[in-house]
Parts: sequence; C-alpha cells; structure tokens
Amino acid sequence: MKSTDLKGVAERYRSTLLDDVIPFWMKFSPDLESGGYFTCLDRKGSVYDTDKFVWLQGREVWMFSHLYNNVERRTEWLEMALSGASFLEKHGRDPEGDFYFSLTREGKPLIQPYNIFSDCFAAMAFGELYKATGIARYGDISLSTFKNILKRADNPKGRWSKIYPGTRPMKGFSLPMILSNLSGQITHLIDHETVERIADECIHEVMDVFYSQEHGLILENVLPDGSFSDSFEGRLLNPGHAIEAMWFMMDMAASRGDRKLAHKAVDITLRTVEKGWDEQYGGIFYFLDVKGCPPQQLEWDQKLWWVHIETLISLAKGYRMTGDQRCLYWFERVDAYTWSHFPDPEYGEWYGYFNRMGEVLLPLKGGKWKGCFHVPRGLLQVWQAFRDDEIINTSGK
Amino acid sequence: MKSTDLKGVAERYRSTLLDDVIPFWMKFSPDLESGGYFTCLDRKGSVYDTDKFVWLQGREVWMFSHLYNNVERRTEWLEMALSGASFLEKHGRDPEGDFYFSLTREGKPLIQPYNIFSDCFAAMAFGELYKATGIARYGDISLSTFKNILKRADNPKGRWSKIYPGTRPMKGFSLPMILSNLSGQITHLIDHETVERIADECIHEVMDVFYSQEHGLILENVLPDGSFSDSFEGRLLNPGHAIEAMWFMMDMAASRGDRKLAHKAVDITLRTVEKGWDEQYGGIFYFLDVKGCPPQQLEWDQKLWWVHIETLISLAKGYRMTGDQRCLYWFERVDAYTWSHFPDPEYGEWYGYFNRMGEVLLPLKGGKWKGCFHVPRGLLQVWQAFRDDEIINTSGK
Repeated sequence: MKSTDLKGVAERYRSTLLDDVIPFWMKFSPDLESGGYFTCLDRKGSVYDTDKFVWLQGREVWMFSHLYNNVERRTEWLEMALSGASFLEKHGRDPEGDFYFSLTREGKPLIQPYNIFSDCFAAMAFGELYKATGIARYGDISLSTFKNILKRADNPKGRWSKIYPGTRPMKGFSLPMILSNLSGQITHLIDHETVERIADECIHEVMDVFYSQEHGLILENVLPDGSFSDSFEGRLLNPGHAIEAMWFMMDMAASRGDRKLAHKAVDITLRTVEKGWDEQYGGIFYFLDVKGCPPQQLEWDQKLWWVHIETLISLAKGYRMTGDQRCLYWFERVDAYTWSHFPDPEYGEWYGYFNRMGEVLLPLKGGKWKGCFHVPRGLLQVWQAFRDDEIINTSGK
Repeated sequence: MKSTDLKGVAERYRSTLLDDVIPFWMKFSPDLESGGYFTCLDRKGSVYDTDKFVWLQGREVWMFSHLYNNVERRTEWLEMALSGASFLEKHGRDPEGDFYFSLTREGKPLIQPYNIFSDCFAAMAFGELYKATGIARYGDISLSTFKNILKRADNPKGRWSKIYPGTRPMKGFSLPMILSNLSGQITHLIDHETVERIADECIHEVMDVFYSQEHGLILENVLPDGSFSDSFEGRLLNPGHAIEAMWFMMDMAASRGDRKLAHKAVDITLRTVEKGWDEQYGGIFYFLDVKGCPPQQLEWDQKLWWVHIETLISLAKGYRMTGDQRCLYWFERVDAYTWSHFPDPEYGEWYGYFNRMGEVLLPLKGGKWKGCFHVPRGLLQVWQAFRDDEIINTSGK
C-alpha cells in the first residue's frame, strides 16, 4: 500500500461507518418500549434476545455521543445517546453506585457488578455525553463512577473473586489497559495533575509491568512485581488486547509529545501482530500461550472482529505517528483479511466471529460481547488517521 | 453393526483401556515429589503445567479405585488411588470441609471452593476407595462431603454466585445430573431409605423438571418450576450432558427394575444424538441453542472427547437394556467417528478437542478439564455392556 492510497482507504472507512454501520444500529438497536438498546441482533438485525448487557449499553451511549462530538452534530445521534443514558441512569446502578453486569429488557438487575468494566464504559459514556450536552448531571455520574473504579481497582472483582488470597497473587492487563483509555477520555472532568498522575501510572503498568523484556510482548497476567508466572494465566497472550492498548499508548504519546513512547508502542504492535498472525489461514489468533503450551481457552484459534479492527487502528496510528513502513505493510495485510471477511454486504454491519479457517462461526451482528463499539470506533479512528496528508514523523528517537 | 460383532467391540474397548489408556496415566500422571497427580500432559505425556485441579484429582482417585474394585485387584492401581487420596486429604479442603477448586503442585490453595463439583468427585473418590480398602476414615470423608454437598445444593455457588437474587432464578442441570451419579456410587455408605429418596428426587428432576415436553429434550437451565426461559441460559442445550445423564438414569432403572424409565432414557438419548449430530462433518456438537439462535459459547461447534464417549456408554447400555436397534445404529456411527479421531496411535491415550471439521484443536492428553476419567470410565462401561451375550430386553413397556 502506498501512502498515496491512504485517502482512498480513509474514504472506504468513512463511508462504511456513516452509510452502513451507524444506520444499522440506528435502525435495529433502539428499544422503543423499555428504553436502552437491544444488542443481540441476528444477521438481518432482528432481535434474538432482549437482555441488556450494561457495558454494551455504555459503549453505545459513548459511541453516539462521540460521533456527535467529533463527526457532526446530528440531532438523531444525540437522541440515540440520550435514550441509552436515561435507561442506564434509571436502572444501571446498585445502591453503592456500582453498575450491574446485565439487566432484563425492562431494567431489572440480572447479574451483579462482579467486575468494573460496566463502570468503565459508563464513566466514558456519561463523560462523553456531558461533553455533548453540557448537562452537569452527566459529568457528575461520570466522575463519581470514575472514583468508584479507582476505589475498586485493587480488588476489581470484589467479593466475587475466586482467587485464594496470597498463594499466587496475579494482576490482569484489562484494568491498566482500560484505564489508559478511560483516563484520556474524561480529561475535561478531572484536574490536570490527576490526569497526569494516572497517565504516568498507566504507561508504567502497560509498558513496564506487563511488558515482558524476555518475550518482547505484553503478558495478559503477571505477578505483582511484573515478573512471569509459569502458569496458565501467566503464559497467556491476548494479542488483540495488547495491540489495542498500544494505540491508547500512542494517543498518550501524542498528547505528551513523547516520541520514545510512540516508537515503543509501534514496536510492540508489530511484534505482537507478527506473533499473533496465522500464517496458514491468515488473521490474528484470539489467544496464545507464550511458551506454546495448549491454552485453556477453547476459542483460542478463532478470528474475532475486535482483534482485527483494533490492530488496524494501532497500525494506522503507528504509521501516522512514526512513518514506519512496516506499519503500512501490516496494515495492508490485516486490512485485506478484515475487509474480505467481516463486512456483510447483503445485510450490512460486520460479522464478529470466524473460525480459524475464516468461515462464519456465529452469524450474529451483536450479542453479549459485540455491540455498537469496536466496528464504528475503528472505522472512525482509521478514517481520522488517514484522512490528512501529513505524517507526524517522529523517527530519529 | 450386528449384535454378533459386539464381543469384538467389547474386546477393542477392553484392550484399549488396559493396554493403552491406563498405562499412560500410570506412567505420566503421578507426582512422585509432592503427591497427587499431574493432569496437564501434552501429546507425549510430558507435564506442561503443574497446577492441580481438585475435581480431576478426585476423578483419578475414583478411577483407580473403581478399576481395583471392578476389574482386578492390582496393587499398583490401589497404590495410585491411595497416593491421590493422601494428597487430597492433606490439602484438598478448606476449614469448612469444602474442597478447593485448584491447588498448586505442593497443595497450596489457588482457587476457592466456588462450586461443588470438586466435592462431588471427592465424595465419589473416597467412597470408592473405602470400598477398596475398608478403611473407615475414607468412608467418613465421603459421607461428610456428601452431606456438605446436600447442604449447599440450594445455592451451590454460595457467595461466588453472580446472579442477582429473584429476577430470573434459574437452576442448572449439572447438580441433579451429578447427584444421580454420585448417589448411586455411595449406596454402601448411606441407608437404603435415603438412597431411595435421593434417587426419586434425581429421577424427577432429570426426567420431569429439566425435560422439556415441547422440545423432547433436556434443557441445561430451567426456571424453578421447570418451565422454559427464553434467554441465553434457558435456550442452552448441552447434548453431551443430557446424554451422559441418561445412562445414570438407565443404571437407576436397572437397579429398580423400572422398564418405563429405561425406555424413556433411551428415547431421550436417541433424540439428543439426532439433534446434536453434525450432518456436515460428523460428530456431536458441544452446545446448541434450542431455538437455533447464536449460542454464547464460542466453542459450540467443537467435538469433545467426553461428549462422544458418554454417548457411546448411553447407546451401549440402552441397547443392552432395551434391545432397541436404533441404539446399535447410532452406536456404530458415533463409534466410527470417535475411534477415527480421538485415539492417538503414536503416543497413546486420546485427544480431547477437535474443531468442527475434525482437526486436532489442542494436542493435549490432559489439562484443566481432561484427566483420567471419561476415556477409561467409558471404555470400561462399554466393555461391560457388550462383553456378555444376553440383552436385558425390556421392550413391551
């Protein structure tokens, strides 16, 4: 792919976002009766299950607010965001202010707040909606939720943790990763000093603690001091996770003008794509074991939408920030795999799950884990990265 | 397959059990340093992880005790069982007497007793070992564990349950299913009246509450009154689970002389095999959605060892008990699929995980879920079912 083609790429991502993906969710996801969104949509967009997964509700509120703030101030997008926010505000939280994991269609709690991902996406959603509307209440919800998350960060699963304390105290990559994203999203709500402190911590956690010098890769779980645990959890690689975190790092590098961080994030991205790429069938594996042992995850060899989309973002941003041609080389390979598999030209939007060989595993457009988030966010991010000419070439570190 | 061939089939199962599978575990699973068993064994039998999953420890103790009690009183089998039992006795339980889910190699607790499956297999293990040795202490552990299980049966996940109470109170098939097996295994430890009462309850739960008249199938989760819940959990089918439970029902039918129960169990077995069979690639799916919606389980289309082995047991017993020729027809198909995929002629024992197309997904011989249990138990059960000539034909219900 030549850098001259990038405007064509940007246009493909833009038009798919605005003419296909967003209209799909606008049309099929609103629950006009009970409020909030349906996310369990089959290939054609029909609702096959009415349960509401709080993190996907938050993600869709965020997405429509973000489009409104960053693409165009379309009333219909704001209205979409507001309807989801109203449902979350009414039904999302338990008496402590923690967000449930899932609710019935009407908003009755089904699954307890057993992790903090619902909260993370709710904080992002209300923060972005505050930016769109200026309504103070939304800012307050975002901020109080963010404080709740920080309070729970040492033991994010709380009383639902199955770990016996002390024997092998591992920590997971999800939390620093998501905080890297979240803290950058709500900078308009917290003071500069706190933002910087949290950013410093996130960068340290992601790039030092979870980064394994020995392997040159990000590990999904490490011992408290960052050292390797030769156990199922310790050996686990989640290439999509690691690569997604790298564009959060690149965003931080951009806002700080930190060239070294940008280049390290690009290097880790490329190393992870190479490690995760399936030379036999193409696409990036979902899970791997760093020592090549059999992973516990039976879905390890599947090809998932979000893994590929997040990789495209990191490669696009990486190229934009460093001019590294390897980013373009890999962008082309992953772009070709992604666009020849995931989009559904017949009924719109993208499939989420392929088997290793690249055949549709589940024909759904949305479910418990796939909602209105990775596809539109990725299309927007790549469009934004490639629509302008200049490369912020920070090489010569 | 003609009924005259059955002795040849029995011989194939017998010799694989005694000349291949059991020697593999005898050779590779004992942890001579710390006690107990390694179960994370790669294709060649090498240990790739040393964590000890308590339910697999219990299952192996049971298996060797059961061989000693039912096949031949070989000292080496008893010693294998005793060494695992000693490890479990020393390290397996928390102060309340509940069995942990997993331990380090040395026996330190890793994962809390967040469900009761560890306990179920421990109760079976110590009960069977008591039968082998007559050592009262083993009987006491079995019995006290069994009582613990009954105490926890209303809320088996205890404080680790993520379900919000009251909104959609579902109950799962695993518990009545495993109690059907367990209660029949420890009849020598409890009084006849209690055995009968528990058996009545299990038969009612399995054959009435979880059996859906509408679908003619066993559902994996139902509402408390047995009615259908149109949710991911409520729509879930686990064909292997349902079919395995059917031979527990057949065993109960045999011990009670209950023809009607035996025939109903055969009918459900056959209907479930037909529903679960993959017409395109052969083999039985791991999970299905009863309404044909996309299941949540990404591994839904995989072909697992235990599903196929348990099916062979139910079909063999079903034929033996009813003479129903459909059992033989399906036994032949499932037997052909199973034996052309799962056994590893090069390094012994059986693979556990194939993708939908029948290619090895994970080359392991043991792991977190696969141990010394389904393969040897199944080989023994089919051997026992087919080694004798007579059919206990109970047709004419």
